[in-house]
Amino acid sequence: MRDFKNMSNRKRPEKRATVRDVAVRAGVSVATVSRALKSRNSVAEETYRRVWTVAEELGYQTNVFARNLSQNSSDIVAVVVGDITNPFYPEVIDKLTKRLSLQKLNVMLVNVLEGARAEDALAPLFQYRVKAAIFVALSLTSRACDLCRRNDVPIILFNRYIDDPRVLKIVCDNVNAGRLIAKTLSDAGHRKLVYIAGSTDTSTNRDRKVGFTEMLLERGDCECVLENAGAYSYEAGHQAGLRLVRENRSMDAIFCANDIVAMGVMDALRYGGGVRIPEDVSVVGFDDIAAARWPAYDLTTVRQPVDRMIEMMAAKLESYSRSRCLIENDNLMRVPGQFIARSSAKLSQVQTKD
Amino acid sequence: MRDFKNMSNRKRPEKRATVRDVAVRAGVSVATVSRALKSRNSVAEETYRRVWTVAEELGYQTNVFARNLSQNSSDIVAVVVGDITNPFYPEVIDKLTKRLSLQKLNVMLVNVLEGARAEDALAPLFQYRVKAAIFVALSLTSRACDLCRRNDVPIILFNRYIDDPRVLKIVCDNVNAGRLIAKTLSDAGHRKLVYIAGSTDTSTNRDRKVGFTEMLLERGDCECVLENAGAYSYEAGHQAGLRLVRENRSMDAIFCANDIVAMGVMDALRYGGGVRIPEDVSVVGFDDIAAARWPAYDLTTVRQPVDRMIEMMAAKLESYSRSRCLIENDNLMRVPGQFIARSSAKLSQVQTKD
Repeated sequence: MRDFKNMSNRKRPEKRATVRDVAVRAGVSVATVSRALKSRNSVAEETYRRVWTVAEELGYQTNVFARNLSQNSSDIVAVVVGDITNPFYPEVIDKLTKRLSLQKLNVMLVNVLEGARAEDALAPLFQYRVKAAIFVALSLTSRACDLCRRNDVPIILFNRYIDDPRVLKIVCDNVNAGRLIAKTLSDAGHRKLVYIAGSTDTSTNRDRKVGFTEMLLERGDCECVLENAGAYSYEAGHQAGLRLVRENRSMDAIFCANDIVAMGVMDALRYGGGVRIPEDVSVVGFDDIAAARWPAYDLTTVRQPVDRMIEMMAAKLESYSRSRCLIENDNLMRVPGQFIARSSAKLSQVQTKD
Repeated sequence: MRDFKNMSNRKRPEKRATVRDVAVRAGVSVATVSRALKSRNSVAEETYRRVWTVAEELGYQTNVFARNLSQNSSDIVAVVVGDITNPFYPEVIDKLTKRLSLQKLNVMLVNVLEGARAEDALAPLFQYRVKAAIFVALSLTSRACDLCRRNDVPIILFNRYIDDPRVLKIVCDNVNAGRLIAKTLSDAGHRKLVYIAGSTDTSTNRDRKVGFTEMLLERGDCECVLENAGAYSYEAGHQAGLRLVRENRSMDAIFCANDIVAMGVMDALRYGGGVRIPEDVSVVGFDDIAAARWPAYDLTTVRQPVDRMIEMMAAKLESYSRSRCLIENDNLMRVPGQFIARSSAKLSQVQTKD
């Protein structure tokens, strides 16, 4: 019987190497292979090297399902995204996934369909026992928060925030950036200003508007009119710009809630209304996406501190792996943005060009 | 002893509902719950409904690790990406992940770091026994192909191809699109043409160039000069455009290997050389990214059939799930692109505006 079994084993087309194959080739027990693959110090150095060499030769891959099943947890981090047509987010997701892979974390990308129930989109996070969920370009519902909490999945909100102390929020300091833009524009002599909102229900939009309008109010001698693009997209900005042109609005500066809206506004003003930028109107955006540097726009903006925000997130995940505690003191981390002066706005001489 | 066990069970902070919790609440056995969760027809309809209602109430989540361990396979598809700074790819990845989620497939996003060994980047695919690997914006090495094959992971190459019959390639018909662009430009009277290459080692670049130059040769009365941007990026296109300006090159039309290169070229010509587009030079791109429609560019281009390419991929994955066979007859699927005439090129009256 034993021989027969061995024969049938030999004949089976076994493409993937098993832990047993590694043990036989390395001349050690299966238990030794398991120990060696888990930790360097659990076996003799020479055994460790031999096991790893053989495992590599045979192309042996740890079966993470067995490991994850026993730990009831995984090395997967979910990146949950909403609408990523705004070019800011591909840049964020690119940097984010690269940073996570340096931490040996795998990324499950969950793209929430328009109109889909959050709970439907989140099920894979719980099934795969993800280590954490990073929400990007999404305004989190309390139902989604509750679901994550019940399933022991800690939440990081990237670039937006909600009023929930158990969610870690990492954002740019949008209020102060809005204040700085208002101050810089009014210092340069602009008096009739327009704020063009993006997605009105986002914290980014709210905070940039609050900072901008508060500072103008403090100044006292500026008018400020609010316009609404209604979304963070080129098309929405373009439509808002065309409305300004049609209404023949008297203005000398426009602050748009982000770069892609600003670019739509600029094209509407120039190609739809013959408005010169910055001679007739100064335009300022927010984010510093790659296209803001193109000579067709050369857009004055505030650069979001994406690299620093991602480093903070990585550090938090690192400490979470050790302590299972994501939030120590502060659950809202604000990072200052950087003002970037370019030719789309007439400014005083104080700013330097990028 | 039994009571003690029950007590300790009750006291343990059990956040995640187990299959046992569902069974108790639904008043059926654990085995019945398992059957009901697996398939509708395995239990009575009323039992099926009750189990699912209770599972939802308790927030019960299937443990996929146990399931995947027993099946030695998963419902994860890896999307492996290289350089995604070209805005074409975020659009592709967005649509791709949405389509996969409709098929109840989860996406593992693997971002290959510059200079990283492919085998290092691919290890998670094999550890998680992914159902398939879709390579986007990457030129696959034969070493990576071998690794995937040894680990039973079928490969789909999206938008590029290599000469390997065991890899499924889904691409736009770049040769014929290049021919069509050459024909359209020469029909409209252009005689001194320039082709600006993107990443020279990609099949997209090779095929577009071959189609374009072959057709011009067949025509006989056109000159064609080859220029090299060296990458599929705005900056590379901008540098190539500045070189054309500096050399004061005599030309009446430029075909750029893709849209983002074309936009860099256009800005270099206009802002760096005072060249009028299309009055002095016609410019044509490839892809039809969102920015190609912006009035600042209004770029004549070929729209890649992304939706159809993704549908083909989805159908292939669907049939692979049934038959474990990804490639039936053809391992290279070519889909025709669509010529989109806009104002960046002087064309005959035959094309309609988008």
